Amino acid sequence: MRHLAEPLSRLVDELEKLPGIGARTAERLAFHLLKSDTEEAMLLARAIRDVKHELTPCPVCFNIAEGGGNCRICSDARRDHTTLCVVEHPKDLIALENVAVYGGVYHVLMGRLSPHEGIGPENLTLGQLTRRLAAKGDEAVVEVIVATNPDAEGDATALMVTQLVEKAGVRATRIARGLPTGGSIEFANVEILKDALEGRS
Amino acid sequence: MRHLAEPLSRLVDELEKLPGIGARTAERLAFHLLKSDTEEAMLLARAIRDVKHELTPCPVCFNIAEGGGNCRICSDARRDHTTLCVVEHPKDLIALENVAVYGGVYHVLMGRLSPHEGIGPENLTLGQLTRRLAAKGDEAVVEVIVATNPDAEGDATALMVTQLVEKAGVRATRIARGLPTGGSIEFANVEILKDALEGRS
Repeated sequence: MRHLAEPLSRLVDELEKLPGIGARTAERLAFHLLKSDTEEAMLLARAIRDVKHELTPCPVCFNIAEGGGNCRICSDARRDHTTLCVVEHPKDLIALENVAVYGGVYHVLMGRLSPHEGIGPENLTLGQLTRRLAAKGDEAVVEVIVATNPDAEGDATALMVTQLVEKAGVRATRIARGLPTGGSIEFANVEILKDALEGRS
Repeated sequence: MRHLAEPLSRLVDELEKLPGIGARTAERLAFHLLKSDTEEAMLLARAIRDVKHELTPCPVCFNIAEGGGNCRICSDARRDHTTLCVVEHPKDLIALENVAVYGGVYHVLMGRLSPHEGIGPENLTLGQLTRRLAAKGDEAVVEVIVATNPDAEGDATALMVTQLVEKAGVRATRIARGLPTGGSIEFANVEILKDALEGRS
């Protein structure tokens, strides 16, 4: 669109880069921000900045952590640190935590195998997972629950993780297919997730 | 959603305030920003800040202006400053400018009468319009083209503006109903807008 002031057309461009936001929606949102109270708009700008500056991946499990340290789950001594649940993304971890039946810790892969999107094993946090599996003593891992999404890419990822875990001499289990094939952990309800956790094999 | 780190849940809340963005979309966008490059996300944060800090309403016509001065159209001596086109929003002005057949200047009401949304005459830029109509000399206004949207609220607004213009002793015209009733100036194509401008009555 011509005749847009430079800062406004730049805002439209940046909004359009967001997933699922087309040209029309980006323009509508930009005009909304232009019209809204400066204070309101700045709350959004600051929230974006704070997410990028205050949240970092947990150095142990890659879950979202505040202030550069370990995440709340890895820091919690009441959790069972000998059981790891491997998930694709932090949002899968959040969905599983909402069920409140799992007492172990997590490992976030930060993705899944996807040749289509050019995501291979080297893009996942597998090096750190291998290091965690090699730990000895009280906190040595005894079980890894592979909780990738129940679809083609998730299953391929699960297969690779299972092989890596078994090679390290640790028991690998996969959450049960109580989850509907083709679905997504993020959107499953509490009952489905409970079944999936309890029926693991 | 529980278990979200504070900056992330704050970002979800702020995104959810945007028009047409529901809880799920806000969450998806927040996770996208969390995952994306810091530089990419900060471009968006800065674009929002710049729109709020660098763009101000033109003190003459309320169009978007950069740097606190008059807008590019009001500053342009080649435009006919004796003809005003009254529009609801800056985006209507942009749509009309894209047609490139209008050589006068504008007056942006910054809204339309909408009892439903609690928008009355006092919320529009009518005081400034009255002052502009009272100007004498070379730049005295000789015609006001009322280009509010062709729907119920736009027509009510047009009626009020027309009465105000005629009371000031200035000729008021309304853009022709080449625009489909119930439609919106912003989304009309160039041909429809051209007809509407040329067929004004």
